[in-house]
Amino acid sequence: MPLVRISLLKGRSADERRAIGDAVHQALVETIDVPAKDRFQIVTEHDAADLVYDPDYLGIARSPLIVMVQITMSSGRTLEQKRALYRRIAERLAARARLRPQDVWINLVETARENWSFGDGLASYAPEEL
Amino acid sequence: MPLVRISLLKGRSADERRAIGDAVHQALVETIDVPAKDRFQIVTEHDAADLVYDPDYLGIARSPLIVMVQITMSSGRTLEQKRALYRRIAERLAARARLRPQDVWINLVETARENWSFGDGLASYAPEEL
Amino acid sequence: MPLVRISLLKGRSADERRAIGDAVHQALVETIDVPAKDRFQIVTEHDAADLVYDPDYLGIARSPLIVMVQITMSSGRTLEQKRALYRRIAERLAARARLRPQDVWINLVETARENWSFGDGLASYAPEEL
Repeated sequence: MPLVRISLLKGRSADERRAIGDAVHQALVETIDVPAKDRFQIVTEHDAADLVYDPDYLGIARSPLIVMVQITMSSGRTLEQKRALYRRIAERLAARARLRPQDVWINLVETARENWSFGDGLASYAPEEL
Repeated sequence: MPLVRISLLKGRSADERRAIGDAVHQALVETIDVPAKDRFQIVTEHDAADLVYDPDYLGIARSPLIVMVQITMSSGRTLEQKRALYRRIAERLAARARLRPQDVWINLVETARENWSFGDGLASYAPEEL
Repeated sequence: MPLVRISLLKGRSADERRAIGDAVHQALVETIDVPAKDRFQIVTEHDAADLVYDPDYLGIARSPLIVMVQITMSSGRTLEQKRALYRRIAERLAARARLRPQDVWINLVETARENWSFGDGLASYAPEEL
């Protein structure tokens, strides 16, 4: 159920982009109970003029390798789960894609469970039977 | 007032992409009272490495023709309206763009009515007069 | 903390795109207390077939120079602040990028303060100490 949008500067190979997606998904599975098969991601690459980041907001030294991750997911996760998610995404990106934790930028957007249709024109998480 | 983001794999013609947008908009008009002229859509095409979907999550057999639709709209629609919307989007995409219902993926993000400015620097749905 | 997505038709120079981003950021700083360094923006350019807008919804005469701005930010701003933000974005875009106010389209998505990680795998606005 998460929709994961990953935004990068141009220059990584398809394999590197895939590894970044793998790392983010693995962290979602490990920390907030996303099913392993529940993987839907959109990766976009941008020119330097078009992906704008501050190089030291909050004292964090960002580089052009920055990975901006926006995750739309159902609401209901606790602050502790969100903290675990942020930490794990940074760890997995370090392990799988050699990213510095300073270059891991994450935003969560929460939405109702009834706001997802995974196909067949149905409200996947709010079936009519209930 | 909806902002509709439609994400596809590369390979469709501009006419096909337009037909997909037409179908989604028609469903919005027909099921949740979106005005016919209230059409704002952004369609993006992606390489296979960059639009990642699970081919059978929840037992739905998805293909590379998958259409991922994220709709940001004002909150307030009932579950029944959302169900009707999902169903109608799948029907219209089948009729207009020959899409299989398994390839229709939808997510709704809800926001306040005061969160829209359609131009002129005004809160279009929360005018000062009120 | 805002994530600003700016969508345009193809044809502007990198300098023009940068000026548009500058204008939006300046308005955020001036009206809703976004820190000057808190700048994170993704600008995308689209073919005419893929950025669809109604040319006169709500009686506003839009042109192909339309700028569609979607801002994800923490919730808590008042309606007055949002109105000031819309007005200022339109003013700054007019001054910096010669945009007509009719071509300034804005949507806000609000999210919890704990939903942001600006790096290091931490919940930047919900630190563990608290």
